[in-house]
Amino acid sequence: MECKLLDSTRVCLGRSCLNRFSRCRVDAVTFSNQFCSSRGMLIKASYSTTRKSKQSIDWVGQDNFTVANDSPWIIETNGIILSPSLVESTVLDYSEDKYDGVVIDPDRLPSNPKAFASILRASLSHWRLKGKKGIWLKLPVERSELVPIAVKEGFEYHHAERQYLMLTYWIPQGPSLLPDNASHHVGIGGFVINDQDEVLVVQEKYCPPACVGLWKLPTGYILESEEIYTGAVREVKEETGIDSEFVEVIAFRHALSVAFEKSDLFFICMLRPLSTKIKVDDQEIQAAKWMPLAEFVEQPLIKEDNMFYKIIEMCIARLGKRYCGLVSHRVVSKFDGKTSSLYYNVADSQDSICQGS
Amino acid sequence: MECKLLDSTRVCLGRSCLNRFSRCRVDAVTFSNQFCSSRGMLIKASYSTTRKSKQSIDWVGQDNFTVANDSPWIIETNGIILSPSLVESTVLDYSEDKYDGVVIDPDRLPSNPKAFASILRASLSHWRLKGKKGIWLKLPVERSELVPIAVKEGFEYHHAERQYLMLTYWIPQGPSLLPDNASHHVGIGGFVINDQDEVLVVQEKYCPPACVGLWKLPTGYILESEEIYTGAVREVKEETGIDSEFVEVIAFRHALSVAFEKSDLFFICMLRPLSTKIKVDDQEIQAAKWMPLAEFVEQPLIKEDNMFYKIIEMCIARLGKRYCGLVSHRVVSKFDGKTSSLYYNVADSQDSICQGS
Repeated sequence: MECKLLDSTRVCLGRSCLNRFSRCRVDAVTFSNQFCSSRGMLIKASYSTTRKSKQSIDWVGQDNFTVANDSPWIIETNGIILSPSLVESTVLDYSEDKYDGVVIDPDRLPSNPKAFASILRASLSHWRLKGKKGIWLKLPVERSELVPIAVKEGFEYHHAERQYLMLTYWIPQGPSLLPDNASHHVGIGGFVINDQDEVLVVQEKYCPPACVGLWKLPTGYILESEEIYTGAVREVKEETGIDSEFVEVIAFRHALSVAFEKSDLFFICMLRPLSTKIKVDDQEIQAAKWMPLAEFVEQPLIKEDNMFYKIIEMCIARLGKRYCGLVSHRVVSKFDGKTSSLYYNVADSQDSICQGS
Repeated sequence: MECKLLDSTRVCLGRSCLNRFSRCRVDAVTFSNQFCSSRGMLIKASYSTTRKSKQSIDWVGQDNFTVANDSPWIIETNGIILSPSLVESTVLDYSEDKYDGVVIDPDRLPSNPKAFASILRASLSHWRLKGKKGIWLKLPVERSELVPIAVKEGFEYHHAERQYLMLTYWIPQGPSLLPDNASHHVGIGGFVINDQDEVLVVQEKYCPPACVGLWKLPTGYILESEEIYTGAVREVKEETGIDSEFVEVIAFRHALSVAFEKSDLFFICMLRPLSTKIKVDDQEIQAAKWMPLAEFVEQPLIKEDNMFYKIIEMCIARLGKRYCGLVSHRVVSKFDGKTSSLYYNVADSQDSICQGS
């Protein structure tokens, strides 16, 4: 929606130094940072006015002010909103979600923090009257000055990403039914073995004292919107330069409260190498090489570690077709219309001739 | 560490109204909100002073001020720190992590936002000189007024929980190597079947239009520090009142970008019922019942949905011992000293007599 201000538009104007409101005409208005919505307009403007009375007092100001399109305009000077009655009719731009919730438009937040405080409060009253439940407020990092204001209004932190902080407000009585924040990191380990029974292994630059000197499988975290099979291939490529293709998930480990109270799901993936020449990632990896499987397993740090030994044992069993991992299948569900990956161990891929033990 | 201030301690004192710094004696100091660290002390105090010169100008003030234990004290009045040279020697309380990182103590943040800004800046200079890399700043929600200050100093949002916002600062040149925020929600679906081949099913109160009228498996999210097998049992109990025990993970689904760009791992768990009497959770569940397996599968919404049908097919195959799910085993790893759960499909539990197809 585009807005135009006419020089002849009537406005209500107040300045704290005058200590009263005076009705007057806007004689000239220059706009910047302007945006419009169905509910109102927030404008940064330079303006000059003449009082309606014969006594002419001209002045020029530069301020943020909030106006409602279909009402006499109320100019907010120095962040003070002058007409509570009109402000109450101004609501932040929002959309509704399917759970009777409200998603505030992060691109249409008032530029003035004090205006934001007033309009946010008025908006909450409005949504309360409309029977709304959960309110989602996403504040871009550039608007971090609004965070304490929202907290003061009763909003709670929900989650944050580099570019924004998400806050929520639960209107009904009783505990919030809004979904929780993400709870897990998801990592992969790539078991890449070639025709000569050599395993692709790395030494990490930064690792806990317990693993110094250990030749280990390439590992890493998958991205928040990345398939496990894609992430495994990517991590192997990044750390070692080796191209590979995903075969199966052999097993997975669930470890609780690993970082920031979040838990960790770690998928051991078998991969088939598609290239041989190693190129080490200097940033994270000290060295990488192809290591004979027998030698790899004989490392004391693998041999004496219950978990790692069990994992390698399964990988070897899988090579000998005495173990069956999980193959990924793309499936569509009508419920959310999403195509997703279902991992299960029925042997319908050429490679997965598994035999239950 | 405990701090004591002696009335005779020499201080440097400045007031903007005097427009200069004057060296003087503290005659009386009353303290509140006091804390100490190896680097300095932040005190909220009422104090009265006498100028050193014969001309006696007494006054009483109440302000936050920052002092270094081992130096002439610099009193900060109205949030303005008066001696940059001394301020630079004041560093926020912190501990070091094993990756050359710094973890700022969230319980020892200056109470005055302007003091926080100065000390944060000085601390960053200090850590830069010491060759530190990643800086972790956890701001409790009660200190939300510090968020815009930290952002202004170059901190980035990392993640947030209801009680805090975590910000980070990466000192070295080049991209940050700090670990990412949690990336996944983890859900479970419980396939609970009794000796009469009846499945435990529910109808949800709030569900997308596509699933209205559907009798479905109990589902839910596991908590951020909860085992999959515990979460599955808990969700079944909460929604239906039925006690059960975990048998196997049958399969799992990975769906990308489900909520807040985060992805979703959904584990289908087979559970053995330990009770029969249903008690519905009124808040989320419309109805729950035991439904004959054949009837459950014949529901058009299950039968016509690729994903759900495949999942149920596997559960049925598992019942007929024609399919092998993943059993959970507790394993210990020396690397992180953690006991965690490893899920794999070797048949070493009494129940898991699986035969690869």
